[in-house]
Amino acid sequence: MINYPNGKKTKSKLHELKKKVNNKSNLGQSLENDVNASNAYYLINNLALVHKKPTPITVVNVDFPKRAAAKITEAYYQLPSTTDYNGIVRGIPIDFEAKQTKNKTRLSLSLIHSHQLKHLKSVLNHGGYSFLIIRFVFHSETYLLPYQLIHEYISDNDKKSIPYTWIRENGYLIPEKLLIPCDYLSVLNLLLFKGA
Amino acid sequence: MINYPNGKKTKSKLHELKKKVNNKSNLGQSLENDVNASNAYYLINNLALVHKKPTPITVVNVDFPKRAAAKITEAYYQLPSTTDYNGIVRGIPIDFEAKQTKNKTRLSLSLIHSHQLKHLKSVLNHGGYSFLIIRFVFHSETYLLPYQLIHEYISDNDKKSIPYTWIRENGYLIPEKLLIPCDYLSVLNLLLFKGA
Repeated sequence: MINYPNGKKTKSKLHELKKKVNNKSNLGQSLENDVNASNAYYLINNLALVHKKPTPITVVNVDFPKRAAAKITEAYYQLPSTTDYNGIVRGIPIDFEAKQTKNKTRLSLSLIHSHQLKHLKSVLNHGGYSFLIIRFVFHSETYLLPYQLIHEYISDNDKKSIPYTWIRENGYLIPEKLLIPCDYLSVLNLLLFKGA
Repeated sequence: MINYPNGKKTKSKLHELKKKVNNKSNLGQSLENDVNASNAYYLINNLALVHKKPTPITVVNVDFPKRAAAKITEAYYQLPSTTDYNGIVRGIPIDFEAKQTKNKTRLSLSLIHSHQLKHLKSVLNHGGYSFLIIRFVFHSETYLLPYQLIHEYISDNDKKSIPYTWIRENGYLIPEKLLIPCDYLSVLNLLLFKGA
């Protein structure tokens, strides 16, 4: 009976699973999954056309095995030069970055690269609508923050983070729905089309 | 004097270089380079905000050497689900695919994936402007083809390719300029803003 799992092993497996569920990278993905699921709903129902851009990767080496698909054997992640998401809502170009934080009291701006903030500013200058989607995991709340607001806050305060209380007062709470787990479009409809 | 290069070796190196310059993949990149250079010019001069999306890659295995950047050791190219380029021109969302062909008489539609054509159609339906940029290498000519035109041609003819003569008559020749090697924006300005 050597291979039969004992209580200890089971406990350790459960512990591992718990760790997996609670770790940072998985938490980072849950907002991404919610946004992607919402985008899929919008696409199918012809409400908006929003896609996540692929992660930029520098390919160094590729193998071509006989009659088979190319296999990349050496590559590295690049720093993104733009944001993760862009698309169209009723003729208006939109562009945003989605981030979540475990921090209870503030959003560290180090989570967003400076060239991403610069890109959001460019989108605004070229007539598009740009924003951040921020999830506070501890509070189970997700906010839409128009770039204009962030720009004003950073210019006025020259800070490296934005307090949760400021975001709660100035941002827009995004509703969670069964089929649209991060329904940011309902907020955009209010902001861009007065709910029409 | 064994290692000194002889005439034969030099000739073979020249031959290799010639092959490299003439081969298909390099030809494929020259239009991409021209579009990228034009986009860089538009960006710097605040004329338009257009970016090439990263190539979608499925990462299977990543190594984390000590204190060094993550190294991807196994990955594969994915079929793109959208087009290569999108952006904003004076508040209007634009979306396009750029392709070149060595064929003298026709553009094979097999160069453009069916889900890319579907995506161009969605862009149009959501209020954006979508098109193809097609370079005929033999004729040294590059055309902008609004998606609407392609859609009508395919619907009417149910063909697998579009003749060069049809594109020459119905498409818009894109001017080549020193700093803007593929100046598609000058065509868009005429189409979208009547040259204003």
